[in-house]
Amino acid sequence: MNDLLGAFVPGVDVRLAGRPGGPLEGLTFAAKDLFDIQGFVTGCGNPDWAATHTAAERSAAAVEALLDAGASLVGKTITDEISLGLLGVNRFYGTPLNPRAPDRVPGGSSSGSASAVAGRACDVALGTDSGGSVRVPASFCGLFGLRPTLGRIDARGMMVQSPTFDTVGYFARDAETFAKVGAVLLGESVAPEIPAEIIVPTDAFAIADEVVRGALAPAVDRYREVTHVTQTSLATDDLLDWARWQRVLQRHEFRATFREWVDRVNPRFSAEVAGAFADEGQISADAITFADHFRTEAKARLDALLDRRRMLCIPTSPILPIARDARLSTMRHAVHRIVDLTGIAGLTSLPQVNIPAGSASAIPVGLSLIGWRGGDAALVGAACALAEAAAPAERAH
Amino acid sequence: MNDLLGAFVPGVDVRLAGRPGGPLEGLTFAAKDLFDIQGFVTGCGNPDWAATHTAAERSAAAVEALLDAGASLVGKTITDEISLGLLGVNRFYGTPLNPRAPDRVPGGSSSGSASAVAGRACDVALGTDSGGSVRVPASFCGLFGLRPTLGRIDARGMMVQSPTFDTVGYFARDAETFAKVGAVLLGESVAPEIPAEIIVPTDAFAIADEVVRGALAPAVDRYREVTHVTQTSLATDDLLDWARWQRVLQRHEFRATFREWVDRVNPRFSAEVAGAFADEGQISADAITFADHFRTEAKARLDALLDRRRMLCIPTSPILPIARDARLSTMRHAVHRIVDLTGIAGLTSLPQVNIPAGSASAIPVGLSLIGWRGGDAALVGAACALAEAAAPAERAH
Repeated sequence: MNDLLGAFVPGVDVRLAGRPGGPLEGLTFAAKDLFDIQGFVTGCGNPDWAATHTAAERSAAAVEALLDAGASLVGKTITDEISLGLLGVNRFYGTPLNPRAPDRVPGGSSSGSASAVAGRACDVALGTDSGGSVRVPASFCGLFGLRPTLGRIDARGMMVQSPTFDTVGYFARDAETFAKVGAVLLGESVAPEIPAEIIVPTDAFAIADEVVRGALAPAVDRYREVTHVTQTSLATDDLLDWARWQRVLQRHEFRATFREWVDRVNPRFSAEVAGAFADEGQISADAITFADHFRTEAKARLDALLDRRRMLCIPTSPILPIARDARLSTMRHAVHRIVDLTGIAGLTSLPQVNIPAGSASAIPVGLSLIGWRGGDAALVGAACALAEAAAPAERAH
Repeated sequence: MNDLLGAFVPGVDVRLAGRPGGPLEGLTFAAKDLFDIQGFVTGCGNPDWAATHTAAERSAAAVEALLDAGASLVGKTITDEISLGLLGVNRFYGTPLNPRAPDRVPGGSSSGSASAVAGRACDVALGTDSGGSVRVPASFCGLFGLRPTLGRIDARGMMVQSPTFDTVGYFARDAETFAKVGAVLLGESVAPEIPAEIIVPTDAFAIADEVVRGALAPAVDRYREVTHVTQTSLATDDLLDWARWQRVLQRHEFRATFREWVDRVNPRFSAEVAGAFADEGQISADAITFADHFRTEAKARLDALLDRRRMLCIPTSPILPIARDARLSTMRHAVHRIVDLTGIAGLTSLPQVNIPAGSASAIPVGLSLIGWRGGDAALVGAACALAEAAAPAERAH
């Protein structure tokens, strides 16, 4: 494969034809290298992981679902090391190109999947999202992307990172493809339908940089023309707390996941990823207990707010994609900022879609809808309908 | 080079003939890849360091000194990544063989230098010692090794790690070579001479495992036959405090050294080395102030004890070399234990020699002498004389 995007795992050539006659016949897809492909080692973006694991005995459920529906697999895409990262920087396999902003990061950890779809190397790609790993690259590369309700799409055969956060997501360039693939992965029909009410949380928008808010304002204004848009505040106190406890819980979980392997292998990591394992033992049992309690309350709050006719609308990322050659300290700061917003659906296990809704100096800026628990098909349908309704605004901007 | 030891930096072939007629004519030496060799990149054991640095414009002072004295350079040896480590495990270039204990680590960070000398790939090798990086591999590989008084051997052209700890050291297999090379590097004659008094600090021996104490007892008993051996306690309170403050100060310094590079490059490290940069910012200014004060007092205490006729005798390492395939947690525990003893001379900037003085199940166990400040030539001479005096004991064990 002539991979000018640097989106595919180097040296791995995997192609599987889709089953003829399915609803996705004619579409091509790629899978993040966190999904098992029978007969291949799932490398998870780190050469020491690849070297210490054997070939998969069967393909992941989501891969099988797309093949069964007729889509053809064209490759394995680069992920941030062991799925830890939101920027798409991989010091071992390279940082995939962001075709929409070539001097900026593509976002991660589903970096290669977003790059491949945005760069037209395939029509669709599977990603995973625990802390924002589909939503962020979708926003940065100007794509539709779904993080489903926790457990809504079968995660068998996908590398585990943080069990109460891990989801199977996907990317598409256009609304029609996004809806078609969503129907297959969700096993449910997806109809484009504008939601009855869109809630704009002022505290979520306040977290975003002015350039992001400005880029998204025309799309939100369009939404006002087609549906009922209201404002509220998500948090009773400080919305930044939501991300804080998301970080604590997720870190606690992925450390447990990787502890034995790290201890056994002494693997090589970039300094960025190694930092995720720093201050080991600094998370107290009390912090976990409090975080669990906080999560329960946050879930209840959003479940009450999002009955089956309302959706939340927030900026997907509070910042634009940073430069590809940014310093580590800049990277760390960016990741922290991003989780301030991605932590909302992460903590509450709710579905979120990114809509390519705006741009700033030609750099994509994504707008998200967060739907009710299990309302993934309605959410994908809403994204498609709103993208269509707001299209003039996006073009004009 | 047919490097069965895995001691030399892969892919780097460097040979420089010594100046004819010098006192070291006929000897071969290797230099740890922390010493500049003109025209070659000093790789410092990490591929991202190598990739972000240019070739040295001139060779290090210690390399020049050995070449001028007639020794010929035969290669660059593997070091623990950016000199951080005491075990000799390098996940990028491999762990050099410990020829005396093939299933055990060679010790580090001057791992390749010790391996090359112990494995007879050269007669002598240069190492560096900040926290124990010559003393530990000398002990583990059964070699003579010197960590000199801070500043006593010219460190120009050697990678900086922690300026108030970094020293230029070296290894040799036999006393005669050890003395000859010491005279060149110290610029001072070295005469084998048994010290007038050897002080055995009970609190230092108490830190060592019983198997280490047992392996060293015959040598100490021999010393009693040839000189005056007395006992004392080094610390007024707890000797483990010395290592504690050594760790704080050294960590504070190497973080300052590498901070800009780590931030700029986001380098890849093994998890072991990445851990050295963990809990960044956890060292308070108060801790540094206290540690500095503690160091001043420890120096004064040892300077008062070690007048120009007394030397201290301690186990070089409190533990045997661990298994080559040990887990990360075992590695970390081992390093912590080792610094409990290497921190004594480290904190006080005093010279220390390792004497291959014993063994346990054929695994080398080293005994150290710590000399007075600047008494490096006398220390090397004492090591040679005592090794000779105790030789029957070592053979018998």
